[in-house]
This record gives sequence, C-alpha cells and structure tokens, in this order.
Amino acid sequence: MATRCLSFETRATAGSARLGTLSTPHGPVSTPAFMPVGTAGTVKGLTPAELRDCKVAMVLSNTFHLWVRPGHERVGKLGGLHRFMCWDGPILTDSGGFQAFSLKPDAKVSEEGVRFRSPVAGDWRMLTPEIAVEIQETLGVDVAMALDECIEWPADRARVVDSTQRTTRWLRRCLGARRRPERTALFGIVQGGFHEDLRREHADVLVDLDLDGYAIGGVSVGEPQAQMLDAVALSTSLLPSDRPHYLMGVGYPSDIVEGVVRGVDLFDCVLPTRSGRFGEAFTSVGRLVLKHARFRDDAEPLDPACSCYTCRSFSRAYLRHLLLGKELLGPRLLSLHNVAFYQGLMERIRRAIADGTAALDRLRGEAHRWSVPLHAEDSTGELDVS
Amino acid sequence: MATRCLSFETRATAGSARLGTLSTPHGPVSTPAFMPVGTAGTVKGLTPAELRDCKVAMVLSNTFHLWVRPGHERVGKLGGLHRFMCWDGPILTDSGGFQAFSLKPDAKVSEEGVRFRSPVAGDWRMLTPEIAVEIQETLGVDVAMALDECIEWPADRARVVDSTQRTTRWLRRCLGARRRPERTALFGIVQGGFHEDLRREHADVLVDLDLDGYAIGGVSVGEPQAQMLDAVALSTSLLPSDRPHYLMGVGYPSDIVEGVVRGVDLFDCVLPTRSGRFGEAFTSVGRLVLKHARFRDDAEPLDPACSCYTCRSFSRAYLRHLLLGKELLGPRLLSLHNVAFYQGLMERIRRAIADGTAALDRLRGEAHRWSVPLHAEDSTGELDVS
Repeated sequence: MATRCLSFETRATAGSARLGTLSTPHGPVSTPAFMPVGTAGTVKGLTPAELRDCKVAMVLSNTFHLWVRPGHERVGKLGGLHRFMCWDGPILTDSGGFQAFSLKPDAKVSEEGVRFRSPVAGDWRMLTPEIAVEIQETLGVDVAMALDECIEWPADRARVVDSTQRTTRWLRRCLGARRRPERTALFGIVQGGFHEDLRREHADVLVDLDLDGYAIGGVSVGEPQAQMLDAVALSTSLLPSDRPHYLMGVGYPSDIVEGVVRGVDLFDCVLPTRSGRFGEAFTSVGRLVLKHARFRDDAEPLDPACSCYTCRSFSRAYLRHLLLGKELLGPRLLSLHNVAFYQGLMERIRRAIADGTAALDRLRGEAHRWSVPLHAEDSTGELDVS
Repeated sequence: MATRCLSFETRATAGSARLGTLSTPHGPVSTPAFMPVGTAGTVKGLTPAELRDCKVAMVLSNTFHLWVRPGHERVGKLGGLHRFMCWDGPILTDSGGFQAFSLKPDAKVSEEGVRFRSPVAGDWRMLTPEIAVEIQETLGVDVAMALDECIEWPADRARVVDSTQRTTRWLRRCLGARRRPERTALFGIVQGGFHEDLRREHADVLVDLDLDGYAIGGVSVGEPQAQMLDAVALSTSLLPSDRPHYLMGVGYPSDIVEGVVRGVDLFDCVLPTRSGRFGEAFTSVGRLVLKHARFRDDAEPLDPACSCYTCRSFSRAYLRHLLLGKELLGPRLLSLHNVAFYQGLMERIRRAIADGTAALDRLRGEAHRWSVPLHAEDSTGELDVS
C-alpha cells in the first residue's frame, strides 16, 4: 500500500450525513466542506487573504488551465502551486479531463488519453492518465484526481459500460504513475451512469483499490436533481465510510444540503464567484439580482444577517451602482460575499449534523429558497441603467 | 466672508516647496498629497480599506460621472458620497466641466453653461456653475471645484482672453450658489493659458475673491512639460501662500516632484490605477510592463523594496500569469501596488522637503526613471501568451 498523506475521521453522524475532519499535508478541513474554484490558480477576483477571512479551508484549481498556462513545470520551479498562488491551505485539482473533453471537436479520445488543441497557444496536446498525475504532483497539490472519461448525457448502456471500464483502466495507470504519494493523495471517480448495477460493479472495483478518497462521477451532467441524488446516495453507500466522498462541481445550496444528507463530504462549484460576477448574491433573504431597479435607493446592506466586508461596508444601492458601471469592485465585492455565504452555509450544515437529523431536515427545508432568484417574475425590463 | 471649513498650514519649506497640513471636515491631510481617482465613487478595483492600508488620505471623485449615474440626489438621500462609497476621509470632486466639454460634438458651450448629452441615458443635460455647486454640495464632499471653461490647446490669445473672463463670471456664479460653505469648500481655477500677463491678471481676480484654495488650470493639456512647469511656477507665485495649491490631473512622478518644487500641494491622476489595469507597475527599479516575457519565471516580488500586500504575497511570474489570463485579480493587485507606490513617493517628497532643498534635488534627479517603461526597447514581439 502506498504511503498515505491524507486521513479522514468522522466526528458525528446524522443519518448518512457525516461531520468529519479531512487531514491533509496543508492542514485539516472540517467537513462537509465547500471548495471555491480557483480555475487558473486564482479564485476569480479574490485574494488568498480574503478567502481566509471568508473561512475557506480548501480550494480547487484546474489542472487543464494550469497546464496550458503558465505550465505545470513553471509552477513547479516557482515552488509549487501553493506558493505560486500564495495559498497555504489544502488544494485539490481536477484531472483536466472534463475541460479537455469539452473542447470537442478539438478533442479526440482514445485508449491512450485525450488529444486536444490548446485554446491558449493552438498546439495539440495529449492528456493521458500518466500526464494528469505528473502535472498534479508537479503542482504539489494535496489531492489529485484520476483521469476519467466524461461522457455525454443521456448515453446508452453500452456506452456507459465501455466508458466505465476505460475509466478503471485509466485509474490503474494513474496509480502506477504516482511518484509522490506522501505529498499528493489520489482520488478515484465512481462511474456507472444511472445504472445501479454498473455503479455497484464500478464501486466494488474502486473500493478494492483502497484509494485515498472517492468522487462521484457521471452525475450533475444535466439530469434532474432527483436522479442525481439517487445516484449519489447509491454511490456513497458503496464506498468505505473512512474515506472522503466528493461530489464534483456541485452546486446550489439545496444540491449541497441534499448531497450531505446522502453522505457527501466535499463539494466545489464556480457558482458563488460566477454568480457574483454576474451581479447575483446569495443572501439570508434569498438570491438577489442586484441590477434590479428595486435596489436603486436601497440603503440596506446586501445581507443584513452577514458580517462579511461587503455587508459591513456597503449598501445594495452602491453595489448596484458598481455593477451598472461595470466597475471592477462590483464583481469583487459580490464574489466575496457569496464565498462567505457558502462557507457560512457549510458551517450551518456542520452544526446541524452535530445537532441531529431534525436540525438537518430544517436546513433541507430552507435550502430551496436559493434555487431561483428572488423577484424573478419582474426582472426583465426593470434592469434600467439609471 | 463665508464660513471656512478648510484651513492650510505650512510646516516647513524648501525653496518654493511646502510641507503642510490641509485640515478638512473629514480630517487632516499631509501635503504635498496625491489623490487617487475614484471616478464614479470607486477607485477602480480597490476597497476603501485598501486605500487606507496604502496610506491614502484623500480621494478625488467625478461630479460628472456621479451626476449621470446614480445621480447626486440619490447619493445625497443615501447619506452623501462618503457613506455611499464607505470612505470617511476627505473627498475632492472636480466640477464635471472637463468631462462635459470632452463630449463634443455632443456638448454645446454657452454663457449659461455646457449642454451635453448624457452618455448613460442619452438625455440632454445642462451643466451650469450653479448646478456644479449644487451637485457637489449635495454629494457632501469636502472640496468642490468651480466650473471653468476648458479650452483646446494650442488656442489663440483672443480665445484664451474670452475663456478666462467667462471662467471668472462662472466662478462668481459658483460663489453665489453656495449653500453649505461650512461643509464644502470651493476652489477656484487660475486660467490664462500660457500668456504670463493673462495668468497674472486672472490670479489677481481670484486672489481678491479670497477662495478656500486654488487650482492651476489650462495646463497639462498636451503642452511640453517645461512649458507646463513655467505656468505652474508663475501661478503659485501669484497665489496666497496660506491657501492650498492644486495641480489637476497630474501626473507622472517627475511631474509631481517638479510641481512640488514649484509650490504645488495637491495632485490627482488616474495613472496608478489605469496603468495597473493595463499591466504596468511603478517600482523602485522602474516602470515594469508585467506581460513582458522576461517575467515568465521571475520569482521576485513585483517590487522588492515595497511592503504592500501584492509585493508581500506574489511573484512577478504569478502577476504576469494573472494578466495574461485576464484574471480580475491582476489589475487589482497591480493597482493596489501602484497606489501604495504613489503614496510612498509622496511620503518621500514630504521627508525631502523637511530635509531641505538638497534632498529634494536628489528626488528630482531620481523621478525621471518612471517617465518611460523599463525594457521598452524590446517590449514588442515578446508579449507572448505562454
């Protein structure tokens, strides 16, 4: 067995939900945890110091983006990704597969890996399981993801079978390519689409491989939420309880709470920062579209229940003014608040697990309020510029 | 005489250079001082807390921009500009004239004022001396500027005479329109172009009006630096020594040091933030164009001699990476550094005045290093994207 640099401990449970601690080479993370996305080595618009102020413990970054620019070798020579982006907490990177696949028709998949044309320099590159591991280990991240095949949804059963088997072969190649297991953990990804037998079969294979952690793949690809959650519940039930369970790219607060209820420990999503850049705020009163004319003269803080810098300092009217003027400070202040909001949500989730299933059920009831924007009914025509 | 809300005290001199304190309703400012520009009520990309960290004492904002959006009355109802932008230090606003004139042919000048088409909503508006004062007093700023006529350069003598006389008539109308002299000071602007007799004549008129402070107008409009500095030296020599002297929209470090040597106390310019957004940094080793390929692998801080957050945290290679990726954090971190650099420069200037003319002369010798970018000779073709 490889040296492990990661450990996971459950401190309390409420049904399938787990309150835990993930210990990494760059410190502990209370779980369930949400990782803001720092695609190219930067959580868009925010400094590492602000992430800390927002109580962020762990961030995600993208192998693909860092590979095409500035290059993992350059980052490695500069001391690794932690030093490069000045973040001393744990970092997880995805494998780069999702981004490479998304370049179709500028990407070709074969047993060897994914050949794609770099959107930065236009050159053709080959992403293989071995290269995915090499890049992530050179970046020096705490958690690397194995390269898996991402397929379209819906896909027919034969396609899912083929792809799941290939994902297993790629995972074995990833394991064989590891050079620094004492510094960088490797998570595998459970596939199997929405076929219970295939997912069981694949989970069995992965569990036998005794991995550092497990992600739930092939979900959140366009299917209805209920279908996703069933696949999540099935997957976590098949995975070892002493390993972290990671639901990639998820999501809205209700997706997160429902994922937690089904035994997920780790989440990541661009939503807090992306919606912030587009002028949306997650607040205790709901999701606000700040450009809405109703906020023109609104002297209230963005979220009266929040104590982040944005909410301590500025009115909704001012934030709206920044957004309308396309001022850099607008996306920044909204992203800051949204990241703080998401971390606050995770803190509430962790407290609810400690308090038991009734507390967690109350949170489930609440979480739907953020699934649609408030005042959505009259948001068109009201986005005037004055 | 109107109630004064402003006072200026000289603590030391070195030749014509003055080390002073400007006392405002929102606190004291050590002069010579540089005001970062917060055009629309925000110094682009930076929070008020960061401005404080950079030792900024006073900021400038634009009457024109705040009038067209979100409107001075709205800002007034929200508690004034200080509360709106969450800046509790002094604020100076320009009169809005410069921006209105610059809209030609969508601007028409008459004795009444400037009629222009709002670039935001497309409506025609009339900026008069009275309205300029009303807007600035409603914003609640510490220093308002009188509306003056801005003319093209070069302009013939008859044009300068007409314009200077109109500026005087407009200034008298501004003085008559003041309603809150106990809260908002009013500065007049010395015109007269590059004609010594006209400038003397205009300064005499303004001095008789016993204003709170004086700006030097009609310079920095495209003329050579030497010609500007002569007009500045002449102007300050004609103005009362117990009032602040303000050189609008200036400039590069050498312009500032030379202005100080000629008796200027206040400066403002978009340069630190604008050049930051475009990837240029003012550092102790010169002006760096960060996208330059030579910084690809540069692990050094942006400015090894600087202690701002940017320089304490990140390498040049990382900053270059952010700029190439058009990441929001890049312009932000460079603007932060440049603003800190300019405040550091002003601190050095103030110390040099206290130390005497020899120290100030050394600074004059140094200041030229920032007039052109370093490595300018090979900056083309090297801005590759990898």
